[in-house]
Amino acid sequence: MRSDLDTLMQARNLDAILVLGNAEHNPPMYYLIGGGHISNAVLFKKRGEPAVIYCNAMEREEAAKSGLEVIPTRLNATETLLNDTKEILDAQAITSGRVALYGIFDVGTTLALIKALKSAAPDVEFVGEEKDDSLFLHAMETKDDAEVARIRRMGKVTTEVVGMVADYLTSRDVRNDEVLLREDGNPLTIRDVKGKIASWLVERGAVDVEGCIFAIGRDAGIPHSVGNPDDVLRLGQTIVFDIFPGEAGGGYFYDFTRTWSLGYATPEAQALYEEVKQVYDKVIENVDLNVSFKEYQKLVCDEFNANGHPTPMHNGGVLTEGYVHSLGHGLGLNVHERPWSRHNANGDNLLKSGVVVTIEPGLYYPEKGMGVRIEDSYWVRPDGILEKLAEYPYDFVLPMKNWKKD
Amino acid sequence: MRSDLDTLMQARNLDAILVLGNAEHNPPMYYLIGGGHISNAVLFKKRGEPAVIYCNAMEREEAAKSGLEVIPTRLNATETLLNDTKEILDAQAITSGRVALYGIFDVGTTLALIKALKSAAPDVEFVGEEKDDSLFLHAMETKDDAEVARIRRMGKVTTEVVGMVADYLTSRDVRNDEVLLREDGNPLTIRDVKGKIASWLVERGAVDVEGCIFAIGRDAGIPHSVGNPDDVLRLGQTIVFDIFPGEAGGGYFYDFTRTWSLGYATPEAQALYEEVKQVYDKVIENVDLNVSFKEYQKLVCDEFNANGHPTPMHNGGVLTEGYVHSLGHGLGLNVHERPWSRHNANGDNLLKSGVVVTIEPGLYYPEKGMGVRIEDSYWVRPDGILEKLAEYPYDFVLPMKNWKKD
Repeated sequence: MRSDLDTLMQARNLDAILVLGNAEHNPPMYYLIGGGHISNAVLFKKRGEPAVIYCNAMEREEAAKSGLEVIPTRLNATETLLNDTKEILDAQAITSGRVALYGIFDVGTTLALIKALKSAAPDVEFVGEEKDDSLFLHAMETKDDAEVARIRRMGKVTTEVVGMVADYLTSRDVRNDEVLLREDGNPLTIRDVKGKIASWLVERGAVDVEGCIFAIGRDAGIPHSVGNPDDVLRLGQTIVFDIFPGEAGGGYFYDFTRTWSLGYATPEAQALYEEVKQVYDKVIENVDLNVSFKEYQKLVCDEFNANGHPTPMHNGGVLTEGYVHSLGHGLGLNVHERPWSRHNANGDNLLKSGVVVTIEPGLYYPEKGMGVRIEDSYWVRPDGILEKLAEYPYDFVLPMKNWKKD
Repeated sequence: MRSDLDTLMQARNLDAILVLGNAEHNPPMYYLIGGGHISNAVLFKKRGEPAVIYCNAMEREEAAKSGLEVIPTRLNATETLLNDTKEILDAQAITSGRVALYGIFDVGTTLALIKALKSAAPDVEFVGEEKDDSLFLHAMETKDDAEVARIRRMGKVTTEVVGMVADYLTSRDVRNDEVLLREDGNPLTIRDVKGKIASWLVERGAVDVEGCIFAIGRDAGIPHSVGNPDDVLRLGQTIVFDIFPGEAGGGYFYDFTRTWSLGYATPEAQALYEEVKQVYDKVIENVDLNVSFKEYQKLVCDEFNANGHPTPMHNGGVLTEGYVHSLGHGLGLNVHERPWSRHNANGDNLLKSGVVVTIEPGLYYPEKGMGVRIEDSYWVRPDGILEKLAEYPYDFVLPMKNWKKD
């Protein structure tokens, strides 16, 4: 939690942290100042002290909404830091000790800045931590009630929109060759569906900044293939619909996947779906408080391996079929954050009270034209119960309202 | 242009470049691979050779859409580079010379990576350039026809939506105290208006990732104040509406501002508007091919200064009223890019053939509760003509359909 930052700084022997970048799509900055339209900020936080924000005077009132001290600059904040490095470090009384840098920011400017910082303060050790195990991902790992409420609200928006998509798809007319038709009689494409998803999300104060995954057939067999916009929707093919909207203006995400087959399913796809669903259920039934997340990844790998599927734990190299990813991940200001579930992750990635995680087993066979993933986001409550943050049915075959199999 | 990259690399004595980050909201990566759902990539490009992309195998088909060589990795690409630094540098035959890093990426991981790179290849000089004058901003500065067409299309979307907003606002009923009312009879807020803007943009394949500026009264007097969502809309107050949507999935931006006063304007606001409009017109009439952009910033500063307004050229320190910013900026994959117009910018920021720039003078008096900015985006054509990329009227007072002054 936010209140752990000073303790975490101490454990890492950090005297101060320096965060660079904008305030909206930059989790460390957002975490400390709560968003706002600040396109370029430099934030200093010394251990045990509140943060201070430098930003262009044009954005001073946006920054002031954070309640933190704001120092307006004539130029952009990072430009000012590059020009007046020593003056600013002196003003912040950073002349010795260890300082870590965070944020999402321009790579070249980061390197120019680190050079200027080292030269202006040779007695300070400036360091960078790999993101996936950083101070911020440790602090963010456990959520307070306000954060859980925001993720839950995104979950409500997500499942509402998913329901609208299901209703829209199953209400389509179907051509003789099993292609779905739009209202105007033309074939329904992935582009059409994604346009509707984007509109329905925005109307509810959410955005899919990175775009959702809505992939059919062979594309469904490649976990991060977002789907070809020109592909038309057809009956009887697996559709992987993975949607991870965030609050408009930056903020908290939800993460959710269903796999559907419209009208009917092939027996092979049906069997694949049931296999994934059984493993999903097994994980949910077995989750215990304070166990390493990776234990469940191992469980899933063992289950799938026993059924003859390749897994990251049993097979080396680059996997392109079978179970090719991890069971889940933490969820918050980042779509992917701690705790991690890779089978060889650090043992400190625990399903402890306050974490919010996805559970998302899947099986992928692109050459067979199919893929299945089922995903929900869960909160580990203080009483140890794993609470799903948004309910949605698990139907695989969605019956079409205006079509019946001969 | 993209074809200038090798020449620019040579001029900067760069043997290779390395780009980090995602493919959608990361201009250098987007510029080289054209977007796609790739959450984490490492791109190498040696001078005179095509680029090579490392990315997670799950995203291999998204990356392959670029037409470039794709090397799938088992873990994320940057994690792989951190683990197998020497192997990858050897595979790319990068063992000496000068390599610059680019992209928008996690700051801590960037620093961890640079450490690993320097240690794995001590004979290579790894460098970072400050973004605003980087290789990429120089290459991106002049646009080819396809790029101009995409910016123009965003301009069409932008002005269409702005027209819808004007039509919606002027169709409102007005309460006795001059507050605008929603369809349901409640006061119309900035939140309501922004929700409509977001929906109308998304329906047209655009997004305002960073959110537009729709600021009234005092907030209109602070250039980057985005407006308080709870503020209600009233007649007779300056509204600064600055909208800069980008193509969905990352891509090209448009940038546009109008200042409105609904129903009527105070004489003081009307005078301020006319002053800005006169200066705007003077700039457009005077723009010449291949002149430094800053010459027009100086012209604007001189004009405003002669009328008694503070300007960045005539007044030191942090400016909070008068003319407090620059005349404009280049526009493309970045909302702000070269050429720059600051009065003390480098002389090589020319209005040369192929650049797309905003022209956006403004005057701001927050304590008087008003601000005015007028902005359009222009293309400097090969024949030297400055072509506005989207037309929109310059009315300041928007008459209300259901309201008349007593």
